[in-house]
Amino acid sequence: MKSILIINGPNLNLLGQREPKIYGSDTIDDIEKKCMEKALELNFRISMAQSNVEGEIVNFLHSSINNHDGIIINAGAYTHTSISIMDAIAAVEIPTIEVHISNTYKRENFRHKSYIGKVAIGQISGFGIDSYSLAMQAFVKILS
Amino acid sequence: MKSILIINGPNLNLLGQREPKIYGSDTIDDIEKKCMEKALELNFRISMAQSNVEGEIVNFLHSSINNHDGIIINAGAYTHTSISIMDAIAAVEIPTIEVHISNTYKRENFRHKSYIGKVAIGQISGFGIDSYSLAMQAFVKILS
Amino acid sequence: MKSILIINGPNLNLLGQREPKIYGSDTIDDIEKKCMEKALELNFRISMAQSNVEGEIVNFLHSSINNHDGIIINAGAYTHTSISIMDAIAAVEIPTIEVHISNTYKRENFRHKSYIGKVAIGQISGFGIDSYSLAMQAFVKILS
Amino acid sequence: MKSILIINGPNLNLLGQREPKIYGSDTIDDIEKKCMEKALELNFRISMAQSNVEGEIVNFLHSSINNHDGIIINAGAYTHTSISIMDAIAAVEIPTIEVHISNTYKRENFRHKSYIGKVAIGQISGFGIDSYSLAMQAFVKILS
Amino acid sequence: MKSILIINGPNLNLLGQREPKIYGSDTIDDIEKKCMEKALELNFRISMAQSNVEGEIVNFLHSSINNHDGIIINAGAYTHTSISIMDAIAAVEIPTIEVHISNTYKRENFRHKSYIGKVAIGQISGFGIDSYSLAMQAFVKILS
Amino acid sequence: MKSILIINGPNLNLLGQREPKIYGSDTIDDIEKKCMEKALELNFRISMAQSNVEGEIVNFLHSSINNHDGIIINAGAYTHTSISIMDAIAAVEIPTIEVHISNTYKRENFRHKSYIGKVAIGQISGFGIDSYSLAMQAFVKILS
Amino acid sequence: MKSILIINGPNLNLLGQREPKIYGSDTIDDIEKKCMEKALELNFRISMAQSNVEGEIVNFLHSSINNHDGIIINAGAYTHTSISIMDAIAAVEIPTIEVHISNTYKRENFRHKSYIGKVAIGQISGFGIDSYSLAMQAFVKILS
Amino acid sequence: MKSILIINGPNLNLLGQREPKIYGSDTIDDIEKKCMEKALELNFRISMAQSNVEGEIVNFLHSSINNHDGIIINAGAYTHTSISIMDAIAAVEIPTIEVHISNTYKRENFRHKSYIGKVAIGQISGFGIDSYSLAMQAFVKILS
Amino acid sequence: MKSILIINGPNLNLLGQREPKIYGSDTIDDIEKKCMEKALELNFRISMAQSNVEGEIVNFLHSSINNHDGIIINAGAYTHTSISIMDAIAAVEIPTIEVHISNTYKRENFRHKSYIGKVAIGQISGFGIDSYSLAMQAFVKILS
Amino acid sequence: MKSILIINGPNLNLLGQREPKIYGSDTIDDIEKKCMEKALELNFRISMAQSNVEGEIVNFLHSSINNHDGIIINAGAYTHTSISIMDAIAAVEIPTIEVHISNTYKRENFRHKSYIGKVAIGQISGFGIDSYSLAMQAFVKILS
Amino acid sequence: MKSILIINGPNLNLLGQREPKIYGSDTIDDIEKKCMEKALELNFRISMAQSNVEGEIVNFLHSSINNHDGIIINAGAYTHTSISIMDAIAAVEIPTIEVHISNTYKRENFRHKSYIGKVAIGQISGFGIDSYSLAMQAFVKILS
Amino acid sequence: MKSILIINGPNLNLLGQREPKIYGSDTIDDIEKKCMEKALELNFRISMAQSNVEGEIVNFLHSSINNHDGIIINAGAYTHTSISIMDAIAAVEIPTIEVHISNTYKRENFRHKSYIGKVAIGQISGFGIDSYSLAMQAFVKILS
Repeated sequence: MKSILIINGPNLNLLGQREPKIYGSDTIDDIEKKCMEKALELNFRISMAQSNVEGEIVNFLHSSINNHDGIIINAGAYTHTSISIMDAIAAVEIPTIEVHISNTYKRENFRHKSYIGKVAIGQISGFGIDSYSLAMQAFVKILS
Repeated sequence: MKSILIINGPNLNLLGQREPKIYGSDTIDDIEKKCMEKALELNFRISMAQSNVEGEIVNFLHSSINNHDGIIINAGAYTHTSISIMDAIAAVEIPTIEVHISNTYKRENFRHKSYIGKVAIGQISGFGIDSYSLAMQAFVKILS
Repeated sequence: MKSILIINGPNLNLLGQREPKIYGSDTIDDIEKKCMEKALELNFRISMAQSNVEGEIVNFLHSSINNHDGIIINAGAYTHTSISIMDAIAAVEIPTIEVHISNTYKRENFRHKSYIGKVAIGQISGFGIDSYSLAMQAFVKILS
Repeated sequence: MKSILIINGPNLNLLGQREPKIYGSDTIDDIEKKCMEKALELNFRISMAQSNVEGEIVNFLHSSINNHDGIIINAGAYTHTSISIMDAIAAVEIPTIEVHISNTYKRENFRHKSYIGKVAIGQISGFGIDSYSLAMQAFVKILS
Repeated sequence: MKSILIINGPNLNLLGQREPKIYGSDTIDDIEKKCMEKALELNFRISMAQSNVEGEIVNFLHSSINNHDGIIINAGAYTHTSISIMDAIAAVEIPTIEVHISNTYKRENFRHKSYIGKVAIGQISGFGIDSYSLAMQAFVKILS
Repeated sequence: MKSILIINGPNLNLLGQREPKIYGSDTIDDIEKKCMEKALELNFRISMAQSNVEGEIVNFLHSSINNHDGIIINAGAYTHTSISIMDAIAAVEIPTIEVHISNTYKRENFRHKSYIGKVAIGQISGFGIDSYSLAMQAFVKILS
Repeated sequence: MKSILIINGPNLNLLGQREPKIYGSDTIDDIEKKCMEKALELNFRISMAQSNVEGEIVNFLHSSINNHDGIIINAGAYTHTSISIMDAIAAVEIPTIEVHISNTYKRENFRHKSYIGKVAIGQISGFGIDSYSLAMQAFVKILS
Repeated sequence: MKSILIINGPNLNLLGQREPKIYGSDTIDDIEKKCMEKALELNFRISMAQSNVEGEIVNFLHSSINNHDGIIINAGAYTHTSISIMDAIAAVEIPTIEVHISNTYKRENFRHKSYIGKVAIGQISGFGIDSYSLAMQAFVKILS
Repeated sequence: MKSILIINGPNLNLLGQREPKIYGSDTIDDIEKKCMEKALELNFRISMAQSNVEGEIVNFLHSSINNHDGIIINAGAYTHTSISIMDAIAAVEIPTIEVHISNTYKRENFRHKSYIGKVAIGQISGFGIDSYSLAMQAFVKILS
Repeated sequence: MKSILIINGPNLNLLGQREPKIYGSDTIDDIEKKCMEKALELNFRISMAQSNVEGEIVNFLHSSINNHDGIIINAGAYTHTSISIMDAIAAVEIPTIEVHISNTYKRENFRHKSYIGKVAIGQISGFGIDSYSLAMQAFVKILS
Repeated sequence: MKSILIINGPNLNLLGQREPKIYGSDTIDDIEKKCMEKALELNFRISMAQSNVEGEIVNFLHSSINNHDGIIINAGAYTHTSISIMDAIAAVEIPTIEVHISNTYKRENFRHKSYIGKVAIGQISGFGIDSYSLAMQAFVKILS
Repeated sequence: MKSILIINGPNLNLLGQREPKIYGSDTIDDIEKKCMEKALELNFRISMAQSNVEGEIVNFLHSSINNHDGIIINAGAYTHTSISIMDAIAAVEIPTIEVHISNTYKRENFRHKSYIGKVAIGQISGFGIDSYSLAMQAFVKILS
């Protein structure tokens, strides 16, 4: 059974409370629940990790070596500024999908840039917490 | 039964023949076949349209009024330059998902910009022709 | 009797339906009707042409040679990107007035640039469909 | 009877003397005469004010409160640099039309930018001193 | 016998009529005649196509697959803006030479950029309609 | 007793009337009243000056030599464009505090730049007319 | 009694030791002492937190929910680069004042930009450690 | 006898008092005295005018028509921002020399740009108040 | 005996595993071993610290006060974005040498910028893990 | 008999040895031989000059006055940076064709800019050493 | 007797022949003659040097150490690009005046930038070959 | 025995005399002496070459083919502008180390860019003339 690590970045622990007009009312627990259901459906094992600290996200990525077959990452604000996270994804050489809850192209210009996009397989953004389950769906083919 | 219009832009008619290292060996007929299967699975009606002419893509979009419930668009190179297509998507007010076969963030800088992203619900890019079926999957919730 | 060609660019066929907060509720037929009345008042002959295709707008411009004495053009989104239309206006050497329904300076930055402005006599923008009849008024002196 | 304030900015007092190839041979008195005739025709009352001092133009704008129903402004060189005049137009909340004698898009790049455009109803530029009477014509509908 | 497709872009149908100071007095028929003579001399077969529509130029390029051994393209104003045409040249994988009648480096800055240059073998520009026959000359070695 | 000159720039005479959503409903007289009270409390003498003319603000600054111990300046729109006012502050060598009623970082990009900031002791902005009394408070230590 | 959280960012723990020409000789303990006195005077409760880690500052901000009525933040170098901290301030929806010890406009260009400014109520900068007590003063009105 | 108008812009009235390290200890009266001596030597008539108001400098320039044969202008900070003064110099069509006391290329970047340079005959900068007498010397040939 | 602190930033813990084409096959333990040998040769004491967290690197730097005589830092991806680390180096006032394993000028543009370079004594980059021992060699003279 | 000067710039003396993937295996002697044959065919006289020194290339250009009827120049790396060579070509007023062995648009961005293009008749680039003989061919018409 | 070295850069040897509309009909010998006369009048000794080679101009500058008291340099096109000449002027620490025959601000944008201006005492430009004698005049005070 | 060519660029012949605050008091002869000692220690043969002429540095580089095993280059000001020197290093395909006496990141922005960095193995900068001997040390491993 394939294992997928789902990493959430800064402020995603506040999901549901935080600016619901942009991010919706689902919480990070809802993401977990929904991903669990999807994992069951698709026969994946999943682990979830969240941190507001850039370097801890680098640590999560490093720890995936030999432990996970795929990574889904919503690096939040670090998406647009973190070369370290980009380098970590390149270093671990595990297929990674970038997800976003909101459509970043509809927001401020500084959110249109993605360092993670340069090393990820692809992006899924704008579908609320469904972005995660769509990413899991995408892994079916990638990991087979 | 919900109806989805799938629009393909310039050079996508050559898919499979064209730079297979970037775009894979699937053809535009494979997209159609795969989308048909997915439509059956998800209980959608789909129509497909392709043009190399920017203004004809605008026409396709206009023609979707009263005829379709959702639009999946891979505007190809026009993604990065066409304000007209952006304006047309805004004008028709039908939920639209932007898809790309390749991960545009991994390619030239001029492919990182998306006018379509400013008016679409979300993006799915980098999953080969699976980007289309993931978009259809995303429509399940959006159109319900 | 002087003849004026009125060219409308992409998405203007949807006028009235499309984002009425920006473009108002007048339709392209209202433009025609209003211009007809104005033409009657000012003793002009007018023709109207609309296309969503950049190259067809170039064709309209070419066809004006020996057929029209003045051109009123609302090139829509192509205003900001089309060097081809700019070149066509320069090529036909017929006095041309650039019009816009909305005040483009109040909108996104990419709408502040005008290639057409570099070859037109002048601009009239922001007066709804009155921009067209003001342009016809302006032609009274230019064509005399 | 509606009252319109016509404001002319720096160097417009020299009109007719100054670089006639760009600005024509009409003088500021010709503008006044022509506007008077147009006012008579359209049943408007008009006042004219000119200053080379940015802050005095701000003063003219402030003085229009409760005194005028519309403003026509040719801010000359301040068009491109004056946030103060822009702020004053926004502050007085009286419909304002921006006019220019020459087509600014045909001139140096630094004349393509307009702070005034961000707060005016619309622009009319390139028609010599006719730009003013076209603006008055435009006010017929705006003030009705 | 090798076959060469010669594609002319927007406004080139007006050649000879259009701004003769920049483009000279030769017409598109003169290009054809001169190219025919050169083809005879060099033992090539040639076909010519012209369109003002970006997407039709993409179509011409696609149609060259299995039909032509080399392409000479003067994409006119689309040279500077069309990623679609660039993509089409890359897709068909037929040796392509970019030509221009005028020296684009002597003109406006926006004409100094070439998307086509990124995928063409080389450029020949500034020699009037001789640019085309020089390109044919260049094909002698490339196609041998 | 220390004397402080409070300078208000363009459009601040309209305060209270002007875009109350941004600037609040307090008027320039309220600023004066509130500053008077604060001056009484802190044992300062104050003078107030307002002008819409950039050069007059330079004059106010010059006149402070030998007359005032500190300057509070809200240069309004000139904050972002006036090198002359910056130079005048540097020339008079009297401690100067920059204040703004609104938080300029929340507004248009062109309001994020401050020439005055380069020569002032510090900035206080975003606290409505309280920005002025906070600046007076700040002078307690600076002038002791 | 209102509670205010005072957050200090990277390197502020070295205050007094670090480049005293720029930052003065006051230490972070002096800030605390001074703020305590001010809190007593203004009848506020205060807490202080310092970290060199961007993500911990995000954590401090999150922990203020339901615990504090106002936040004073000197994010140090993260002011200019941290979208995560900006997002956290927006997420917690507690009135926040940005303070700086030095006047950032007098320093390197990269210190003129503030992400925090986009979500804070206002800025107070350049008054040494008095910037903090001025911010507390500003909270009197904001929290009443 | 030829007449030369010497115009000094903002803050030059403070010369000698203001930042002597940059501008030296000579005052504006020293400029006048030195220019008078030079005028005597070269047989010129001179007039001097100073203002801190941009628009008054425009007025000075206008007033030179029919009254002066040459203009020496040190527009101070307006050198770098005033299109109005540039336009006024172009309008009056009197030979104008731009002078500066300090070498502007050695100072901040925003002082490297000169609108006045685009319409002046030449520049003399960096020679303290000798810049003025060198400009008078230069007029000997220009006015002969 | 002089003591040198060697700090390694994000992803350097993966050295040897990570993209060996860019970074070589040496591991972080090899760096330590090689530095130990060099320290012995040069009579230095060394300590090594690694973290993926920007703020912890700031902490390492702070802890060097009174404990180390020199610092060698390879800040990895934080080199290009971290003003905090730059500020910390400036704050501790201990001679610091910046090292890189790869030649950053041969890589992406965003790796050409170095905040650390602004406060370090010098850079040594491109020599694999020898960059560290060369830095130690450089300290011989700096610390004598 | 017309005489053509062929100038080769920096590093072209190493042709054939240098990065053959970009520049091919032909040497500068092959250029000479090929140009000689072409000169014979076209009835031209040719001279060749090469230097790695920018100023010597300026000298070569100056020496062409009264000695040559046309110039073919491959200025190598100086193409992109040398205003001096551009000025020299403008000064000598002899028809000049710019050639390049490789297609500079396919290489680094800094090679897309050409100062020489601003003063040359035209460019021929990307055809290996055939670029030179194509330029000679182009001179047939230019010099007749 | 003070000695002044006059250095002329690239293409100035062609003066009089080269684009007389920009540079006038005076030759480099006329500069010498005129400077000689001026030197006699002002009691200076002068030497003249010209080269088209950037590095030789550096050599001229170096050779001035202990030999000359002042330098007048017209570095021609190298003005805008040569950091080496700038460094050489800084290195020799001899007062240097930058001169230009034409007013560089009236020409292309790339001629508005001056590296030499950063190290020269001042500039004199736009007065034809009189720029040189004005510079000599300026040296009277500088060298006394 | 391996042979290393040490190339010094413009103004380095003045070392010791020139701006000692930036470059120290060591002379170019001191570099040679120190390198000789180091060469003896490391068993290398060295040659030194210096020129102020960009093209001669290109010549030095060319002459290293078959004569030297490594190159140490301090291209001085040409580091930041010379594509020719960069091309020459790429052409000769001999391992090259870039050195600088001062830390270029601490100086003007235009010194942060390095063309040479794109083709060198690595950089060593900021260690005074020790930068050269550190480079020799680095060659021990590179040349073994």
